[in-house]
This record gives sequence, structure tokens and C-alpha cells, in this order.
Amino acid sequence: MKLSKPVAAAAAFLPTCALAQEATPASESSVFLFNSLFLLLAGGAGFFLVAGLAMVEAGLVRARNAGAVAVKVIAAAALASLMFWIVGGGLFYDVEKGGLLGSFALWSAKDVDPVGAGRASAAGFFLQSALVAVAAAIISGALAERVRLVAFLLFTAFYAGLVHPIAASWDWGGGYLEADWKFLDRAGATIIHASAGAAALAGAIIIGPRRGRFPAKRASAPLASNVPLSVVGALIVWLSGLGLVAGSAQPFGAIGDAIGAAGVVVSANLAVSGGVLAAIVMSSMIYKRVDPSLVVNGAIGGLVAISADPISPALWQAALIGAFGGVIVTAGGPLLERLRIDDARGAAPAHLFCGVWGAAVVPWTNADASILGQLVGAGMIAGFSFAMSALLWIAIKYSIGARVSAEDELAGVDQAILGVSAYPEFAEP
Amino acid sequence: MKLSKPVAAAAAFLPTCALAQEATPASESSVFLFNSLFLLLAGGAGFFLVAGLAMVEAGLVRARNAGAVAVKVIAAAALASLMFWIVGGGLFYDVEKGGLLGSFALWSAKDVDPVGAGRASAAGFFLQSALVAVAAAIISGALAERVRLVAFLLFTAFYAGLVHPIAASWDWGGGYLEADWKFLDRAGATIIHASAGAAALAGAIIIGPRRGRFPAKRASAPLASNVPLSVVGALIVWLSGLGLVAGSAQPFGAIGDAIGAAGVVVSANLAVSGGVLAAIVMSSMIYKRVDPSLVVNGAIGGLVAISADPISPALWQAALIGAFGGVIVTAGGPLLERLRIDDARGAAPAHLFCGVWGAAVVPWTNADASILGQLVGAGMIAGFSFAMSALLWIAIKYSIGARVSAEDELAGVDQAILGVSAYPEFAEP
Amino acid sequence: MKLSKPVAAAAAFLPTCALAQEATPASESSVFLFNSLFLLLAGGAGFFLVAGLAMVEAGLVRARNAGAVAVKVIAAAALASLMFWIVGGGLFYDVEKGGLLGSFALWSAKDVDPVGAGRASAAGFFLQSALVAVAAAIISGALAERVRLVAFLLFTAFYAGLVHPIAASWDWGGGYLEADWKFLDRAGATIIHASAGAAALAGAIIIGPRRGRFPAKRASAPLASNVPLSVVGALIVWLSGLGLVAGSAQPFGAIGDAIGAAGVVVSANLAVSGGVLAAIVMSSMIYKRVDPSLVVNGAIGGLVAISADPISPALWQAALIGAFGGVIVTAGGPLLERLRIDDARGAAPAHLFCGVWGAAVVPWTNADASILGQLVGAGMIAGFSFAMSALLWIAIKYSIGARVSAEDELAGVDQAILGVSAYPEFAEP
Repeated sequence: MKLSKPVAAAAAFLPTCALAQEATPASESSVFLFNSLFLLLAGGAGFFLVAGLAMVEAGLVRARNAGAVAVKVIAAAALASLMFWIVGGGLFYDVEKGGLLGSFALWSAKDVDPVGAGRASAAGFFLQSALVAVAAAIISGALAERVRLVAFLLFTAFYAGLVHPIAASWDWGGGYLEADWKFLDRAGATIIHASAGAAALAGAIIIGPRRGRFPAKRASAPLASNVPLSVVGALIVWLSGLGLVAGSAQPFGAIGDAIGAAGVVVSANLAVSGGVLAAIVMSSMIYKRVDPSLVVNGAIGGLVAISADPISPALWQAALIGAFGGVIVTAGGPLLERLRIDDARGAAPAHLFCGVWGAAVVPWTNADASILGQLVGAGMIAGFSFAMSALLWIAIKYSIGARVSAEDELAGVDQAILGVSAYPEFAEP
Repeated sequence: MKLSKPVAAAAAFLPTCALAQEATPASESSVFLFNSLFLLLAGGAGFFLVAGLAMVEAGLVRARNAGAVAVKVIAAAALASLMFWIVGGGLFYDVEKGGLLGSFALWSAKDVDPVGAGRASAAGFFLQSALVAVAAAIISGALAERVRLVAFLLFTAFYAGLVHPIAASWDWGGGYLEADWKFLDRAGATIIHASAGAAALAGAIIIGPRRGRFPAKRASAPLASNVPLSVVGALIVWLSGLGLVAGSAQPFGAIGDAIGAAGVVVSANLAVSGGVLAAIVMSSMIYKRVDPSLVVNGAIGGLVAISADPISPALWQAALIGAFGGVIVTAGGPLLERLRIDDARGAAPAHLFCGVWGAAVVPWTNADASILGQLVGAGMIAGFSFAMSALLWIAIKYSIGARVSAEDELAGVDQAILGVSAYPEFAEP
Repeated sequence: MKLSKPVAAAAAFLPTCALAQEATPASESSVFLFNSLFLLLAGGAGFFLVAGLAMVEAGLVRARNAGAVAVKVIAAAALASLMFWIVGGGLFYDVEKGGLLGSFALWSAKDVDPVGAGRASAAGFFLQSALVAVAAAIISGALAERVRLVAFLLFTAFYAGLVHPIAASWDWGGGYLEADWKFLDRAGATIIHASAGAAALAGAIIIGPRRGRFPAKRASAPLASNVPLSVVGALIVWLSGLGLVAGSAQPFGAIGDAIGAAGVVVSANLAVSGGVLAAIVMSSMIYKRVDPSLVVNGAIGGLVAISADPISPALWQAALIGAFGGVIVTAGGPLLERLRIDDARGAAPAHLFCGVWGAAVVPWTNADASILGQLVGAGMIAGFSFAMSALLWIAIKYSIGARVSAEDELAGVDQAILGVSAYPEFAEP
């Protein structure tokens, strides 16, 4: 997302723009209003995506942990919003061209040159805040059913305030990766998804698996407690994701922008569709059944894969890129199981693996990007996030403790954290 | 929906437009941006409506089938999106004036004359894709609790790729019904709802009722397993339906358009409200209780009824049209039961009957439409959909088989299809 | 919300507007389209907020009452929409400057001077309808688990048709409070929330507590039956609330408006975030656990508190105002318990107390408002709503009866009202 230059771009790759140029342009005020509204809508879509992830995650864990999962997501969204305002904004927005670190300063709206900027600064900030909240919700899923709430919130504060904005500034802030590597990630495949997926993976490794997850013989996947909730959540991630990707990838101030944004929405929709169907086919072939958690993650994986560059691919390329995301999430789960890493919601396959896939495939459809630049960028972002997160989780583990007690885990973290059950009136069989 | 001429119209019936004409018009670019944004928002609302239908349907079936219902909806939305792109778009968009069949061609964005078109072609396509996904979700509901997933997806592929776009092209594509009969269906009362409802009815008849649905004595309605989920789903169908209807019925590029669109939203809101309250009153009078499935379908029936022409009715007419939709859904269920047709979610009453009602009532408020033209149009669309769907379901029934085995049906299709239960930790009483 | 003058204002307090003035303004048509679209989106957000409240309320009651709660909300939204059209609109819009009572007349769209009005009249009406539906949903929550459906709907008809619009006209209609007291409530802290909260409180007192709620020794809080549903509902209230507050507080027709609206969204987001975290901290300190109902109401309380004036506060002030809302909801519950008032969802603390708090704190950040004026305004609105509601509930109680029978209450109102259970297949432990 190149928020720093929202009104330009988009034109070059659109064959229609020669014609579009001849149209009466929108007035400066209208451009400002369109771009601001589009960013506000995308930010709203981002918070809706957080709600969708809360549904996905609460539905995929066991009933005795479902309440704490939902509370963790809303708490993380709140904390991420606050921390990105207090610390993250300065780090993200104030990075110098080619730089690696912004400033430490409370973010505040600056609209000194509205016409030049082309959109309200707070609208862009709102979208960024939403993206940070999405990242926090992603991490939450992987660590479900054993992480302490206070440990998770402490981690979220650091991740949202420091880790995410620093890494994001390297590209979207105009820093090192953008300036030196022409790294391209328009809608967060790596900056949101691979980064959060790497943080989730680090946490899952250091906190360790849920008790009983890896018995002597073979892994026993815990059952989802509420399949309809998680599938409806996936539908919400899907539709809100379309808005989030469009608002991240495109300004909306000229005819070429609108053509581009509509194209992004259609491409992303086909990518998600491809991801869903690929996951269904893969699951049917391998397991002789349609595993709903794979369907859910197939939709998410398709969305993540197209997020790196939803503009350049032709529609059939978009569908294929998304479909391969669906393949990745199906293959990723068993891989993690073999490594005895317990990622409760499949966050690493859907967000880290698919995010890297999405970044790496950009040169297939976009000559401006290089394989090397994309791998360097994805590697730096995911690697930085993994390393910082691992350090944080180690520090938390050996200070306040990262996971609930064994008894609390067996009884369900809802009782330990909330003091009530998620579904107290529904008896277990 | 007259996407082919989005910027015109809307003016004639608005008394204020003489005044509005005097205002400085929006620039060509602004018109393009407004129309495109409005279509994108309506398309997003359409996918949200799919999520609402997934909630309605998952909540109204028994727990042992609720997971498969949700998975069926997300799979159908994905497949419908892909098939409408691969086959449907050409059939829909390329029909000649007065014609009956478009072309077979992969859809792709064409924005050769942006100013003339007035909106991004992909934005209109996205809305159409969403409408196809809505249709697929409607059909899904009627066949719940016994249809095979693969059979339903095969049907969906044909319906979304062929049946729907061909019928839709006759009116919205500018084909036969529009050219020769002045048939009017602005927001899909027949093109989406009656067509999908007829397809659902054909499927319900050919696949046959759920085991135990019609015992010797009298019909025993299976219980809804999750009433709050279905009612919240109805609220979501309601609010997303307002956006879908507005975006389908109105462009948004001039003052008269905005007045029209706002009027559509208010009219549709009152129609839904009328449908809800009529269903509550009817249910209270007949059954001495407020049946939640009737409330849910009353909201949907009100929305469907106003979809044929949400622009022409005065507000009291809109409320009455919607309220009669609520009456229809209450009366439709027992009618189907008498015919021993098992429509698991009441899709035929809410979508087919209310859609035909909505089309037939248009001449009451709109002198441009004729009773004959409306009945011919509704009949052709619903009849074509019913006949094609019946053929398809028969072909499926006698080839791969349309329904799960008797044992799987009794155990719940969740186990057969997903290999897991929707709510594995909630014991049955 | 000053819908009567949507295009002006917003400029004075924005330091950037000197610059913004120099930009080419949007054309009259574009201004009209932007403002209308913004109001339509805010109205849609309002109905989404109703769905969120339905989830919150259905999740926080016991399973045997959860279906009726959801049905009550959708029925109330329908009735509120109809009554605000039939009676409320005239009372709200036709009040004279400084007056106390509008006219009795069916509302209808009037767009005689589109350019002067700056937005479609139906768009503003739609937003107002959504706000009335929100108010009805708020009241519903407090009275859950014992109120009769017909009694609640009768009350809703009067509240939506008379009580709310009369009180709202005093400020937003340009009546007494606006003209004589410069009372400021931009987005409904008192006009929606304190008013509905006061009505809920009156109802809770007169209808009386749920059986067994206040045993001899100490209050026993009934358990929430579906924690994930209520928390996801709170996330939806949060995100839809951002749109509702922005659309209520700001027009969207000029650069200064967009800057203001984006600032409102960011401020409201931080206020909600503050409310969530304050409730978590308070709950952890007092109860040594994170009570999910407090987290839910903390989010709502933060939103309500910032609704009085989301424009004037600096971001740190917005966060503090919201955080104190989170403190209020935590303290409000025990206060009501001590008074033996049974507010099933905590509507009075979250909406009445936080609404008054929000109104009272406006002078801290906005020199145009006076403490006296704010207290007079909040007192008149909440007092009028409380008194009228108390009279109505007394009349209902002693005529048709306000609550279900003792047996029905013990068996759950779902059986009495709906004739079915919300979750018939989930056994109680």
C-alpha cells in the first residue's frame, strides 16, 4: 500500500487510461473526498475482518476455550489501536527514504497540504490501525487454548507498537525495501500476513503445543466446537477482505483508479474462490472428506496470496494464485504437525506461507518486481517479525509466564481467564 | 437492474429533478467514481447477504446438518463466482437486443469508453457475481439436510454458469423480455429470487423430502437448531439487502440518482419492516406463537417483494407490498406441506412466490409496466429456471446421485460430508 | 447531529481549512452525492449496529430466552422503522426553532431545494430510522428474560413514534435545547443512548427483576449462554458504531468535512479501545477475572461516551473519555444490584450513565458548550424519556400485563413466545 502517493499510479498499467485522461477530472475537493471515503471504508472493512477472524477462531477451538479466544481478539484490537497511535504511527510514518527506523512520537493528524496529500491523514491512519488489529487477531488464533491473556496482551502491545510498524515502514513508509529493492506488497501479503504469521509461529514454538496435542503415536487434531460460526466468519473475512485489499492497493480519485479498484475486487474475489475450491478438492482427495477448517483457511489463504499484488494479474492468474493458496493451507497443517508445532488455527500456513507465496509470485505478472527483491523483502519482514517475536515470547515465558497452568488448560482457559464458560448451558456429551 | 444505462433514467419520476437539473453537475470523472463505488458497495452488500443466508440456513436446520449447510454456502459462493466469470458473463453481457442467448466467452474488463459507460465494467460484474452467489445460497437452503455436496456443487456450476445468466440476460442484458415486453425487474425479484426459488423447488421435488418429514399423519416440522443465529442472519439479510437493492435499482451519478437511491433504501426498509410484522401477526393468529422461521422469512419475503420495483411505490405502498410478502411466506409453508414438498428453509415461498408477487404488483405503482408483460416475464424466468433445474437434478439423480445415503441422513450429513459434527461438544438432550 | 445544516460547520475548528478553502470545491451535485452516500452508509451502519446488539443480548441471556431476545430485536427494528415514518418523522423534523413539539404527519421525502439542502432528505431520514431502531434494541436488552413480546412491541411503538422523536427534536430538530441552551450532542450520546437507557431503566424498575435474580443473601448474576456470540456482537457494535458516529456528527461535502470525519472515526476508535481496556483492567482488579459482559459493555460504553462530541477532543482526550466509559459500566452494575434493579444486559450503565457522562464532559474539550447547558439537556432528554416510559410501562403493566407468567419465566420465555427453544438440540448439563 503506497499511501504516500495515493493519487498517482494506477494509470500506467490500465489500457483504458488514454481515454480516461480526456474525461473532465474530478475537482481537487472531490478527489480528496473520494480517497478519504475509500480509505475509511477500507478501514471499516479491516475491523470487520477482525470480527470475522474472531468468529473463525472461536469456532475452531474447543468449547471450553471459545470465550477467551473471542475476548482475546477484542482486547487485542483495542490494544493494537492504542499502541499504533502511541508508538507505531511515528515509527511507520516518519521513516526516511531508504531508512530502517522512524521516530518515537504520538501520531496526530497532519493535514497541512490537503490538495497535495489527496486524502485526510486520519483516514489513512485508520486503515493502518485496522491492519494492525487484523495482525493481532491473526496471532491470537495460533496461540489459542493455552496462552495467558496478560502474556498475549503484553506481546500484542510490543508487536503493534514496535514490530509491525518498523517492518511496515520499510515498504509502505517508503523505507529501505521500497527504496533499495523495489519490493512490492500492495495490500499486506507480507507486511500484515507473513509478519503476523511469523510472529504466530514464533509464539507457537516457544509457548509449546497444547497438552495432548501430540501424543506418542500420531497427532490428534482437536475438534472445532462451532463449525457454522467459523464458516460464517470465513465468509466475513472474504467479503471484508475484498474491501481491505482494494483500499490498500488503490487510491480512488480518478477514473483509472476506479477501474483499478474494481479490477482488484474482482481479482481478489476469484482468488478467494480459487482458494476455497482448491482446499475442498485437496481435502476430498487426501482425507475423503471436506474438512471445514481447511475450507475456512482456503478462503483466507486465497485472500492472502493475492494481497501482494492484486492489480497486475489477469483474472485467470488471480484465480490460480489464490487456488495455490488453498493448496498451501492444506499441505501446511501436516507439515507443522510433523515438526510438532501446534498452531491452533493454522495461522502460519494461511498467513505466513501464503503471504510469502503471494510475494514471490508477483514477478510472474508484474515486471517491475524481481524475484530477488521479493524474497529479500518477504525474508526481511518475516524474519524480523519472527526474531523479535521469539525474543519477546522468550522474555515473557521466563518472566510472567506465557501459558496457563496445566489444570487450567485441562479445565479450559475460559474458566481461568473469564471465570465463566463460553457456553455454560450446553452440556458436553 | 439496468446496468447498461446507469447514468440516465431516475430523473423522469422524480418531481425534484427540474430543480436538480440546475445544479452544477458532477464532473465526468466524479460520475464515474460515484457509480463505480456504489456498485462495489452493492456487490459487497451482496456477499454480506450470502453470509446472512448462511446464518439463516445453518440456524434453521438440525444441529447434525448445520456444518454442511454452512460449507455448502461458502463453496457455492466460490463456485458461482468462478462460473459466472468463465461462462456466465459472456452469456449475460453479450446478448443482443431482443435476443435469447449471449456468447460463450470468458468475461474480462472492458473499459474502452469510460465516460460513456459511466462506471467501471468490473464494478458491475462484481455486483452480478454477488447476485449469482446469492442465488446459489438461496437454492442451498431448500435442499439442506439430504443433498450431496458434490451434487449440489455440480448443480451450482450449471446454474451459475448457464441457467441464471441466460435468464438474466433477457431483461438486464437488454434481451427479449426487455425489448419486447418492457418487463421490469429492477433489483432481482424474479431474476434472482424467483429464478433461484424455482430452481430450489425443482430440486426439492426431485431430490425428495427428508426422511421422516412427512409421516403418515401430519407433517412434523423439524426444529431449528440455532434460533439466534438465524434471526441475526435475517437482520444481516435485511441490512445488506437494502444496499443490494439500491445498487441494483439505481445509478448514483447525479442529484436525481441520489434522491432515488435514498428513496429506494427507505422504501425497501419499510417493505422489510412490513414483512416482519405481517409474519409476526399472521403467526400469532394462526399458531398462537411467533414462529421464528416465519419472522426470518417474513423479513426476506418483504425484501424480495419490493425488489421488482423499489422506485415507483409510495412509502405506504412499499410497506404494503412488503407486508403481503410476509403473508405469503406464512401461507406458503403449509401449501408446500400439503403438496408434500420439503423445502427445508422455505426458499420457495420467500423467493419464488414473493418474487412473482413483487413482479406482478409493479403495474399498481408504475404505469410503464403491464400486468401481462410482468407475468410473461416472471413466468419465462421462473419457468425456464424450473425446467432447466429439473432436468439437471434428474440427470444428477440418475447419474452420481443427488442425496446422501439413508444412514448418513439419519446420522446427519455433517459426518458424511465433513467428517466432523457442527457442534461436537454440545450433547443432544 | 445537525442534519439541518449538513454542509456548513466542520470548518471552524479545523486548522487546515484555511488551506482547504483554496482547493477547487466539489460541484453542487458532487456535494449532494457525497453527503447522501455518507448518510446512507451511516444508516446502514446503524442497522448493522442493531444486528450487533442482537448478538450481544442473545449471547448474554440464558439459553432458554435467547431466541425470544433475537426475535424481539428484529421485531422492534421493524416496528421502530414503521412508527418513525408514520408518526415520528413529523414530530422530529417539523419542530419550530425553540419549540417543543413538531407536527403529526406521515413523513415523506421533500427535496424541493436539493442544492440548498445538500443531501437527499430520505438519506437523513434513513439514518434517523436506524438510530430509532438502535434505541429500541437497547431497551430490549434491559428487559430480557421476562418481558412479554406484545408489551415490548407496544412500548416500542410509543417510544419510537413519540418519545424518541419529541426529545430528539429539541436538539437535532433545532428545537428548544439547541436554540436556548446551545446543548451539544453530535452523535446521540443523550438523544439515542441516555434516552434509551432511561427508558430501559424505567422498564426494568416497573416490570421488576427476573425471578431469583435477587435472593435473600446476595445478587446472583445469571450466566451468559453464548459468550463468543456476545463478544463478536460487541466487535460489530464497535465497527458499525464508528460509521454511525461519523455519519451523525459530520457532513461529507468538503475537504474540511472529510478531515473532520476521519478524525471522528479515529477518535471514536480510540474511545472504544479505551473503554475495552479500562473494563478489562477494572474487572481484573475487582473480580480477579475478565468478565466478558464487562468487556462487551466497556466497548459500548466507550462508544457512547464519545458520541456527544467526537470532533472536539484531542486523541488522548478521546481515549480517556472512552476509558472512563469503561469504568462506568464496571461500577454501574453493582450500583444497580444494590438498588435491586435488574437490567439484564447492563443497558443503563452503558447507555444512560455513559451517555450523561459523554454529554457532561463536552465543555472540557469544546468551549462552545457549557456544563449547565449540557446537564440541562441531558437531564431534560433522559428525564422526559424516563417519565414517559415509566407512565407507559405502568399503563401496560396494569392493562395487558408486562411480563410473562411465573411458569413461563422459569421454563424460559422462548417456549412461551416462540413455541420453540433457541437451541433445542443442546442439552443442559
